[in-house]
Amino acid sequence: MMDLAPGAVAVIFTSVRRGDASTRLAADADAYGDMAEAMAKLAAEQPGFLGMESVRDPVSLRGITVSYWADDPSARSWKQVSEHLVAQRRGREEWYEEYSVVVAEVTRAYRHPAE
Amino acid sequence: MMDLAPGAVAVIFTSVRRGDASTRLAADADAYGDMAEAMAKLAAEQPGFLGMESVRDPVSLRGITVSYWADDPSARSWKQVSEHLVAQRRGREEWYEEYSVVVAEVTRAYRHPAE
Repeated sequence: MMDLAPGAVAVIFTSVRRGDASTRLAADADAYGDMAEAMAKLAAEQPGFLGMESVRDPVSLRGITVSYWADDPSARSWKQVSEHLVAQRRGREEWYEEYSVVVAEVTRAYRHPAE
Repeated sequence: MMDLAPGAVAVIFTSVRRGDASTRLAADADAYGDMAEAMAKLAAEQPGFLGMESVRDPVSLRGITVSYWADDPSARSWKQVSEHLVAQRRGREEWYEEYSVVVAEVTRAYRHPAE
């Protein structure tokens, strides 16, 4: 687990992809997959980036991505990165049936097995 | 999206299931599936429960579950509910290769389409 000192910020992005069975099977090969991969790489290059975890159920098309940032300004800056703004617009117009974003300040964290 | 006033708390539970291909296919029918369903129901009965979102990728076995609580005492109380303690122990001993828990206080939230 990345270092999550108090004051770190979690951005919880929950989404439902559009699509039918055929697009689900082709999901990894399509423009969405390329964009998702590009955004993950771009996020990792931003100041204050601490880590990202992402899971999508290929059947329900529901996904949750959580990114972690050193502080709130870092999280806000990432939202405004120009290539990310383009991806957000395409997300709204083409890819997502719906999505939600919750921003929250980390108060504690633990894991098993302990490090 | 549930009502997430500032002060609400998000509990981000990230896990990797143990198992091979055969247990993946049977995942919904096994004791883990029953327990996961029972815990979701039990959580929803707790004071301060606001909502829960859960996704698991059946191939990678990675999952993310986010539960939302009215305040930090509600989130802490849920961790200590006795049936939940039993599930947590079985999770460590039987079901999860690894997991992490991040607790964070909600500062803002938005969705698309807007409500």
